Amino acid sequence: MIYLDNAATTRPDEGAVRAAMHYLQEDFFNPSALYREGFAVHKELEEARRHILSFIAAPVGFDLIFTASGSEADNQALFCTANRGNIVTTAGEHAAIYNSAKELQKRGIEVRFAKLNGDGSVNADDLLSLVDSGTSLVSVIHVNNETGAVNPIAELAKQVKQKNRSALFHSDGVQAFGKIPFSLSSEIDLYTFSAHKIGGVRGAAGLVRKKSVNVHPLIYGGGQEKGLRSGTENLFAIKQFEFAATKKFAALESDYQKIAALNRYFRENLRGDIFEILSSPQASPYILSVSAKGLRGEVLLHMLDDEGVVVGTGSACSSKNRYSRVILACGIREKNADGVLRISFSVQNTMDEAERAVSIFNRCAGALAEKMR
Amino acid sequence: MIYLDNAATTRPDEGAVRAAMHYLQEDFFNPSALYREGFAVHKELEEARRHILSFIAAPVGFDLIFTASGSEADNQALFCTANRGNIVTTAGEHAAIYNSAKELQKRGIEVRFAKLNGDGSVNADDLLSLVDSGTSLVSVIHVNNETGAVNPIAELAKQVKQKNRSALFHSDGVQAFGKIPFSLSSEIDLYTFSAHKIGGVRGAAGLVRKKSVNVHPLIYGGGQEKGLRSGTENLFAIKQFEFAATKKFAALESDYQKIAALNRYFRENLRGDIFEILSSPQASPYILSVSAKGLRGEVLLHMLDDEGVVVGTGSACSSKNRYSRVILACGIREKNADGVLRISFSVQNTMDEAERAVSIFNRCAGALAEKMR
Repeated sequence: MIYLDNAATTRPDEGAVRAAMHYLQEDFFNPSALYREGFAVHKELEEARRHILSFIAAPVGFDLIFTASGSEADNQALFCTANRGNIVTTAGEHAAIYNSAKELQKRGIEVRFAKLNGDGSVNADDLLSLVDSGTSLVSVIHVNNETGAVNPIAELAKQVKQKNRSALFHSDGVQAFGKIPFSLSSEIDLYTFSAHKIGGVRGAAGLVRKKSVNVHPLIYGGGQEKGLRSGTENLFAIKQFEFAATKKFAALESDYQKIAALNRYFRENLRGDIFEILSSPQASPYILSVSAKGLRGEVLLHMLDDEGVVVGTGSACSSKNRYSRVILACGIREKNADGVLRISFSVQNTMDEAERAVSIFNRCAGALAEKMR
Repeated sequence: MIYLDNAATTRPDEGAVRAAMHYLQEDFFNPSALYREGFAVHKELEEARRHILSFIAAPVGFDLIFTASGSEADNQALFCTANRGNIVTTAGEHAAIYNSAKELQKRGIEVRFAKLNGDGSVNADDLLSLVDSGTSLVSVIHVNNETGAVNPIAELAKQVKQKNRSALFHSDGVQAFGKIPFSLSSEIDLYTFSAHKIGGVRGAAGLVRKKSVNVHPLIYGGGQEKGLRSGTENLFAIKQFEFAATKKFAALESDYQKIAALNRYFRENLRGDIFEILSSPQASPYILSVSAKGLRGEVLLHMLDDEGVVVGTGSACSSKNRYSRVILACGIREKNADGVLRISFSVQNTMDEAERAVSIFNRCAGALAEKMR
């Protein structure tokens, strides 16, 4: 099988799983417990927090709340901050932000959605025009999960703050963290990432917050995570994430080059008469969105699956909708939106896999196009 | 080491971990994905849901929302149901309910706390006197996590419904599920349980809801869990929980008898001149709360730890507070509340461990009492 749906989830890093297994066996203690063994695992938790945060931020200015998923972190960013005046976000957000914003609308908060450019990045002029003195929060996805478009969040955050100094800036970095070189600037107040998109297991994710930013809990209880997120800490998932992330960040540049080569091979060798490349050349190489023009993406997906090639259609999280909301917001016509497939890579993919996959893509799509004539 | 803090967390069942490992290795796919491998893991998820639910409820009337923790399930029960009029709960709730109720108070909801009996069970008369036509939700812990007191939730739910047919009844069953014989009656609308208290790993828990009961999401996003809880499903944790729970429920009666014998040994052999047994004889045998009269519990805990015996002080989740809120609500004087230790068992504990532990308890507490004279 050639697995090319790594933006949906990745195979957990085996070495990191092995290294973390003792938190399921010997060191299974509750980090809140007062005895020596509880203190010891609490120390390991704090070490993971410091370490993971250090990959993208100066620890002096930022802190990290561990959550169980990127969706939870996104929800906490949206529901548990200011909630005054209006909120500005984009039409290109992951469902965890988009549907949370829709819920805030229902609760009477004014939410403004900025338009997208054709590649799925946010239209910066439109975004900034929506920010005014009543804006309490701006949330812009870092790397679009369907097209890979990279939003210049440091620059956007700076411009937002120039218009409204007190507006908070949040970014969902789930498809960026551990994949593209990046470090949090002081204008970014909140940042979401998740373990299972970079070789971590599910159950660990994080909301980075600038220490000066006031965030309420989404989950109340025993007061873990400095009172900001209750529930017994999932130390196995968090430590496995730490180990997987350490590996990813150590190889960030070389992985990026390797993935870029795979991405380029697809761009250059998919049949031009059938496939339209939707992702811009500036997109994150980890995600390549293509449209098999006039074909039904789901049919093609199953043909590819039968041949051992696994790809996604837009976001796995929203796979119930026929057309991707984000792809339509890019201005793709419905006819072509139907044929959109998302190819997403991990460093476990090889050039040999890319060659075989492209050949299967071309053969299956060719056969399907032939049939529909 | 003799581990007697199983109410805080249990060592994950090794066989269940082994059986679930392939969800971290081969079958790591996203259950929302449209390809065959995604469908296959989705089916396994639904099988786990049906199976776990079947242990305590007739599937025809009830459904199950998987969450990442018992705290999350409790929060969803409190924040995402009616929220009209008043809410009735007890002074003996776990922090995940108690602090959520306090937060609801801050948001302007009237919350009424029922008094406890001396053993930590709720005073039924007081509880019922607080329920009126304006009550939208009643939440009563099933087995108190500090004293083991069992609340007769089926009977309480029935009486609540007699006073107010439209009030919802929720119970936090985290310390009951897989430990005491029990099946959900139709008067119970919502029920919380968690994996890691019965040999499951952290990251899996559930909120059972009667199908007719309207619950909103706490976490919005991709629409997993029938739209009621978004985030990529943690299949490894859920399947491992299924396997661990299957084992627990198959041995529920025999485990109960075995644990009761350990509990009885402690009750009968702890030095009566030093230890006061706080848990009533009718309490769940899995939890035994004792007070080392006049001694400092934390000091004793560390002495025991040095001798290889690990016990808790009240709830691990609230270990930052010197006196347990629940123990004080039982009417214990501060002087004795300071010396409260929670001994909590799992089926991995043996009678040999109990004998050794009791001897160490008596020796350490005797030495400490001597020193303080």
